[in-house]
Amino acid sequence: LISHRQDSILHSRTMSQARVLNVDTMNPNVKRIEYAVRGPIVQRAVQIEKELKEGVKKPFTEVIKANIGDAHAMGQKPITFFRQVIALCAYPDLLEDDKFPEDAKNRARRILQACGGGSLGAYSASSGIEVIRQDVAKYIEKRDSGIPSNPDDIYLSTGASDAIVTMLKLLTSGEGKTRTGVMISIPQYPLYSAALAELAAVQISYYLDEDKCWSLDVNELRRAVKAAREHCNPRALCIINPGNPTGQVQNRQCIEDVIRFAAEEHLFLMADEVYQDNVYMEGCQFHSFKKVLFEMGSEYSSVVELASFHSTSKCYMGECGFRGGYMEVINMDPDVKLQLTKLVSVQLCPSIPGQALLDLVVNPPQPDEPSYATFIKERTANLHILSEKAKMTEQVLNTVPGIHCNPVQGAMYTFPRLTLPEKAINAEQAPDMFYCMKLLEEMGICLVPGSGFGQRDGTYHFRMTILPATEKLKIVLEKIREFHKRFTEEFS
Amino acid sequence: LISHRQDSILHSRTMSQARVLNVDTMNPNVKRIEYAVRGPIVQRAVQIEKELKEGVKKPFTEVIKANIGDAHAMGQKPITFFRQVIALCAYPDLLEDDKFPEDAKNRARRILQACGGGSLGAYSASSGIEVIRQDVAKYIEKRDSGIPSNPDDIYLSTGASDAIVTMLKLLTSGEGKTRTGVMISIPQYPLYSAALAELAAVQISYYLDEDKCWSLDVNELRRAVKAAREHCNPRALCIINPGNPTGQVQNRQCIEDVIRFAAEEHLFLMADEVYQDNVYMEGCQFHSFKKVLFEMGSEYSSVVELASFHSTSKCYMGECGFRGGYMEVINMDPDVKLQLTKLVSVQLCPSIPGQALLDLVVNPPQPDEPSYATFIKERTANLHILSEKAKMTEQVLNTVPGIHCNPVQGAMYTFPRLTLPEKAINAEQAPDMFYCMKLLEEMGICLVPGSGFGQRDGTYHFRMTILPATEKLKIVLEKIREFHKRFTEEFS
Repeated sequence: LISHRQDSILHSRTMSQARVLNVDTMNPNVKRIEYAVRGPIVQRAVQIEKELKEGVKKPFTEVIKANIGDAHAMGQKPITFFRQVIALCAYPDLLEDDKFPEDAKNRARRILQACGGGSLGAYSASSGIEVIRQDVAKYIEKRDSGIPSNPDDIYLSTGASDAIVTMLKLLTSGEGKTRTGVMISIPQYPLYSAALAELAAVQISYYLDEDKCWSLDVNELRRAVKAAREHCNPRALCIINPGNPTGQVQNRQCIEDVIRFAAEEHLFLMADEVYQDNVYMEGCQFHSFKKVLFEMGSEYSSVVELASFHSTSKCYMGECGFRGGYMEVINMDPDVKLQLTKLVSVQLCPSIPGQALLDLVVNPPQPDEPSYATFIKERTANLHILSEKAKMTEQVLNTVPGIHCNPVQGAMYTFPRLTLPEKAINAEQAPDMFYCMKLLEEMGICLVPGSGFGQRDGTYHFRMTILPATEKLKIVLEKIREFHKRFTEEFS
Repeated sequence: LISHRQDSILHSRTMSQARVLNVDTMNPNVKRIEYAVRGPIVQRAVQIEKELKEGVKKPFTEVIKANIGDAHAMGQKPITFFRQVIALCAYPDLLEDDKFPEDAKNRARRILQACGGGSLGAYSASSGIEVIRQDVAKYIEKRDSGIPSNPDDIYLSTGASDAIVTMLKLLTSGEGKTRTGVMISIPQYPLYSAALAELAAVQISYYLDEDKCWSLDVNELRRAVKAAREHCNPRALCIINPGNPTGQVQNRQCIEDVIRFAAEEHLFLMADEVYQDNVYMEGCQFHSFKKVLFEMGSEYSSVVELASFHSTSKCYMGECGFRGGYMEVINMDPDVKLQLTKLVSVQLCPSIPGQALLDLVVNPPQPDEPSYATFIKERTANLHILSEKAKMTEQVLNTVPGIHCNPVQGAMYTFPRLTLPEKAINAEQAPDMFYCMKLLEEMGICLVPGSGFGQRDGTYHFRMTILPATEKLKIVLEKIREFHKRFTEEFS
């Protein structure tokens, strides 16, 4: 048997060397990418689910996935109005059906009229359907107390990720010491580090202050950019607000400081604002970077370049699967905008159902429309439940000796700090990976180790979503408590 | 006025220099991209449409767009069954509705069951929903007379473009003389040249033989790869069959020759087969590269690396807006597959409505199901009309002195050769761009100049889709005839 296995390993090696495309010949930038949110832990979770189905005995009967911000997968229901309109657009014969409210039908007719041939099946302009870009601009104006938004500055996208990568791509140039550097927070959402690895741009890490609720300190930005100027060309600063994975909500003063810093240091600002409706903590409020920028006066608003990102995937709707999103660009060079339009046109256009869904998000039922009451009820309920779960998560985790959890002010995650026993730290694996893998195997809880997001050396965390249904979330938190105690005893 | 204009140009220049992101500092690879299918002609067409709406007088009342393979925009109707299922998936309350046939409901239930939380709004696995990958594998097996297909080799994608760019990305490495070279046909679909420009990979052009119905000659491949080995590392060969923009369908012998060539020259094969149902000419037949590869025996089928691409956007369904697609990879190194899975996971997953639509394409109504008759009727009608239009296009264009049009054997385009008068060739613009722009301004017909796809020096072409509704296509062809005559007289 052993000899047969060696044979086949040998054969597979020869094959591998003979292949045109193998790990030695492939794109080295792709090899450098890491994306923990869907990494080894999640792959093992999928495997365990299959084993459970096949009847393999485990100390649990289901895997609870708290690794990814996927509200519907965790049981959140879609907003009725949104799905009615999508169904009407997909199958316009339903426009004759009495069961659908008039406002849903009107909305569907309006969207279809803006589609080529009146069909969701036609391509749109590469930057998105014009009517929808106009609706996005109106939404932004309303959100930002009337500060104007120009539909020509709006680019619809495939989720926010697509637009973020596109902007990073535009910004990347130079070689060696002139290579583009991009500032990202630590901890960060690993889309950023992954995109920078793929583009071979330089990641400039700035640390959020865990002791101050993961807030951003401009002095830390100054330290980071100064150090980076020695070896690259810092050109952009990425902010995630409300924060992923950290759940903090930036106050207005902080945003002003960041904008001033970007102006002084001549940096392009990228504001990832996909959690803009997800603010739970009293006294916290979402301030868009654009609004603050314009309220700081033309000294800043006419100069600072900004791209802001939003998506259909989070907030109260959680429609990740539709891959809808947009970005608004402020003060972008007109020639660069032409290049951007050309670049996105190669991929033809974002999904039209995703564009349609985005239109409903930015232009939901109005007070005088029949679907308004239900819409408000559903939206309020979704946000209320998230808010409750945010509080519960913080409270329960902070009762566990060895876990410290900052308040979940917003977004959909907590990133608690773990005190790990010595023997766990001497393990061969990254200690928080070891911890999370054991938690998965023993408890059936799927979290992402902090190392996937970045953390200060010698500190350990995990990211957990607050999305499991309340009863399940309780179980998750109890299981973590039990596990953490056992783990600490076992490895002390 | 002049001084004011100069002022504002100066001001805009100063602004531009002050910007972090301007055409001098942006990614130079992005600047090199060209994408004619949505280039200046199309932008001008959109402008003219706006002018017409505003009441500007033109020698025509509408712009007919034959620049892009967008069937629904040109009036083709969606397949009823597909849209019923999508509507049911989007708004599952409709599962209680008697108006929907049982097979549509069963299909929707099956898709929803495979979705996280039973919702189109959840993310799927990055490579796509497992059930759908299984359906794709079954579709391929059936298409290829039983040659096995493994769902683990299937990656769902955002249209075919996304998967093609992903494969090219994996294949790109090296610097200078070791930089990856990729062989693409001339004329080509500009997605390929655009992706290679963005990746800074080397484009290796091989010419299709216009005099032999745009067929592919392996001797030309040999010439091209030999010349390329002097300055880069040729690693992949891209084939579009049926051809875009050329409309040829490759015969079996040709495909065998290409596979042998790829094996000899150690090239990764990329087969763009998105027009696999679009074969019109008697005696022509679609042969998948995979089927031919496996029928050539294990000498080839165990060695040649192949990625094949398909999409929901073309064929009889034309559902471009859903951005559905897949790729199948054959003989891919298992470690590279892990890297591929990681790479696509950064963008989370392809649109779920697009995945659902793809599922219906690969698993349409069966003979014992209630929707079968209507489905077959609609599919047959769509393909029949395309076939008629393919014939008509060739016939009419070949009656025009100075236009030579190869038979449209398949796909959705013709790429006729233009004899242009001398004075038109001395114009400052590329002569076929000059021709197409004038055609747009004078006749309201929007085509793409051949230079956007590549052509032999000194030859001129345009690409035209055969998609306008029959009556409109007649008008388009008549207008081209009239225009070509006038143009020839004017510039002789």
